[in-house]
Amino acid sequence: MSTTPGNAVTMEKILSLCKRRGFLFQSSEIYGGLNATWDYGPLGAELKRNVKEAWWRSTVQSRDDVVGLDSAILMHPNVWKASGHLDSFSDPLVECQSCRQRFREDDLESRKCPNCGGGLSEPRQFNLMFKTFMGAVEDTASEVYLRPETAQGIYVNFQNVVNSARRKLPFGIGQIGKAFRNEITPGNSIFRTREFEQMELEFFVKPGADAEWLDYWVEERMNWFVSHGVHRENLRLRRHGQDELAHYAKTVYDIEYRFPWGWAELEGIANRSDFDLRQHAGHSGRDLTYFDDETRQRYHPYVIETSVGVDRAALAFLIDAYQEEAVAPSKPGGASETRTVLRMDRRLAPVTVAVLPLSRNQRLTPTAKEVHALLRQRFNALYDDAQSIGRRYRRQDEIGAPYCVTVDFDTLDDRAVTLRDRDTMLQLRLPISRLPEVVEDKLRHGW
Amino acid sequence: MSTTPGNAVTMEKILSLCKRRGFLFQSSEIYGGLNATWDYGPLGAELKRNVKEAWWRSTVQSRDDVVGLDSAILMHPNVWKASGHLDSFSDPLVECQSCRQRFREDDLESRKCPNCGGGLSEPRQFNLMFKTFMGAVEDTASEVYLRPETAQGIYVNFQNVVNSARRKLPFGIGQIGKAFRNEITPGNSIFRTREFEQMELEFFVKPGADAEWLDYWVEERMNWFVSHGVHRENLRLRRHGQDELAHYAKTVYDIEYRFPWGWAELEGIANRSDFDLRQHAGHSGRDLTYFDDETRQRYHPYVIETSVGVDRAALAFLIDAYQEEAVAPSKPGGASETRTVLRMDRRLAPVTVAVLPLSRNQRLTPTAKEVHALLRQRFNALYDDAQSIGRRYRRQDEIGAPYCVTVDFDTLDDRAVTLRDRDTMLQLRLPISRLPEVVEDKLRHGW
Repeated sequence: MSTTPGNAVTMEKILSLCKRRGFLFQSSEIYGGLNATWDYGPLGAELKRNVKEAWWRSTVQSRDDVVGLDSAILMHPNVWKASGHLDSFSDPLVECQSCRQRFREDDLESRKCPNCGGGLSEPRQFNLMFKTFMGAVEDTASEVYLRPETAQGIYVNFQNVVNSARRKLPFGIGQIGKAFRNEITPGNSIFRTREFEQMELEFFVKPGADAEWLDYWVEERMNWFVSHGVHRENLRLRRHGQDELAHYAKTVYDIEYRFPWGWAELEGIANRSDFDLRQHAGHSGRDLTYFDDETRQRYHPYVIETSVGVDRAALAFLIDAYQEEAVAPSKPGGASETRTVLRMDRRLAPVTVAVLPLSRNQRLTPTAKEVHALLRQRFNALYDDAQSIGRRYRRQDEIGAPYCVTVDFDTLDDRAVTLRDRDTMLQLRLPISRLPEVVEDKLRHGW
Repeated sequence: MSTTPGNAVTMEKILSLCKRRGFLFQSSEIYGGLNATWDYGPLGAELKRNVKEAWWRSTVQSRDDVVGLDSAILMHPNVWKASGHLDSFSDPLVECQSCRQRFREDDLESRKCPNCGGGLSEPRQFNLMFKTFMGAVEDTASEVYLRPETAQGIYVNFQNVVNSARRKLPFGIGQIGKAFRNEITPGNSIFRTREFEQMELEFFVKPGADAEWLDYWVEERMNWFVSHGVHRENLRLRRHGQDELAHYAKTVYDIEYRFPWGWAELEGIANRSDFDLRQHAGHSGRDLTYFDDETRQRYHPYVIETSVGVDRAALAFLIDAYQEEAVAPSKPGGASETRTVLRMDRRLAPVTVAVLPLSRNQRLTPTAKEVHALLRQRFNALYDDAQSIGRRYRRQDEIGAPYCVTVDFDTLDDRAVTLRDRDTMLQLRLPISRLPEVVEDKLRHGW
């Protein structure tokens, strides 16, 4: 059994699988698509849900020092003055004077258009926030922005959370939600889109403890990816140089992933010092300090931020799960075959268990449907009775279903079924009545 | 033990609890707030997650005839031409010529301003869609809209889903996501907001089977609310008259809920006929018909839609869970006391189990923390050791935690703890090692 390492996969193969099996569709495709926006199909929607659930469980629910938040996309415009986004969340935009195509100046290697070789305009600063108008009049007073990050919703609620959840440092506030950036050059499918979903943690610590907590979270986040199926050798850590540090940041690390087109940012982890709370205190006139019981001091806590895109993370999980294997012929004497399998973490797989009657047969169907009904009360379970059993196993492998249950003619006599493991292709015969607990156990502890 | 029925609760009490305990904060509160937008605090975020999870499980995952979708908020502008939103998703706006306040004309009983008695302007049609610009130039060509409903994302992906998930009628596509409406008169906290989250199902059926499926879904959705804690007597069904039917609808029912300010729409269930698929087929030039294997016919399926706001549903669950009870004095001979309790469905409660050491004591803390760590692997578990045990029980009752676990000095000897039920206040002593399975069992089957 030979395997192809994940990083040899091409984007064409991933995107073809995603389209064919319903992970990902171009948004508004029947109208020619909307540039760089994507819709998640039935399997993609489940994958995305699972990625978010895995992050929420490990970062919020299973910790005693983090609580959740769900703040609105539309915020008061002063938030973006205080955060610095109105003044400096922009990219240098240049336009080709021949073909009118637009580029980010800092992406270009020369002053000639990469499309037609024409001359480029002088750069102008282009703010990446989407603007809209709230209320019945479209004027400056009614301008609001779609948030370009979820983090600011956390800062402005810092005191509300401290007071209502009665929290002491160190503690964090985690949030998952949509953010919007009017990127000049989006691309690479769901890697860089104008609408995307973030999973952000703002972890508040005592000044002086920040360096230690930054290290802690860098390691936690690296481990999270690895423990959910990203290959360690496809991850690396890059520390931002002094010249590229954002205005709010003391230290920044990028967790980079080896995408098929090269290394690129998967997650950012930043020591933002007390910049954000100080800025919001200054602009709002509110006291956003924290009273430290032990030292009897008041101060603005420092913040360690971890920030990752759901879409980008889902793409990395898909890529590293993708494998093509040469397997034994399904018929004696047949040619060897290729099995495409998504070896995806069991918790992330969009379908947990597939129920497959040996064939589409009047006698098998009622029992197979009964097994499906039993399993889908607790698991994401799928039913498939179209085409040969071999092809159906391949189909489930291709979408990463960890387990298949086969209902055959013996089942009608002994009320037992065959459970098959995606990764080892090992099989186990067991009574229908024990299926839910056995699947639950294998999900927790492996095959 | 006397109880107050849910519908006697005032919004003041609900909102005071929500603010105090961190369910709900006004968005951007430190900047004076942004009109009619709200942030969910730690408990509100968990409640909202649970409401969405309950809907997704019952409407999508546990059914074999529904799949999920997660489409983008930003869609191609032609979508809104085809759907009719660009032309007719508007309210009649009038402005007072004295005080300049704005109103929806159809909300008013007379032609005099309800605020100052001034005269009103002629009404103009005000489109409720939020507009923004995608790309580097703000002109008509780059105008896009924030979706006012998630449903259109389902229609435009109809063929993609049929093909990739190989579905046969009848089947549905469910989706949860943010939608935006620039309401002239938002209000009643999270009941009507400009940014909100929808849970929508579009169920595709053969023309002729639509009336029957409409009835089916009306009953399903009524039952869903009741089985998750809304009191049956606070729900009623209202059929839209011919004069108020939307342009796309053949029959519409509203499930109305008795909010503290009166009956109002909780969920809409509509027979949309084949309006949507026909419109998108016409405007996109794509074939959106379905080929029926049995009758060998091609047609546009009819659609039954169920549409409910997450925020509105969460509010109804909160209101009907809220009770104030006169309970026995906590100290012998003391005055009788009032217990505020959220009798919320166990699956929706933001905290499932609270771990309470009898007192904040060096000897109890390690064991109590151990119990908390054990439980939070599987449940949303909270730790509380501040103030008297009686006050802490009350605090957990107030946020609707179904179970409390008390660690006392006997625990140090016998490794057993006390599990308390929120609703009956019954208690049970059991070994720590059995806690996870017992809590799991009680969650599934009740106390």
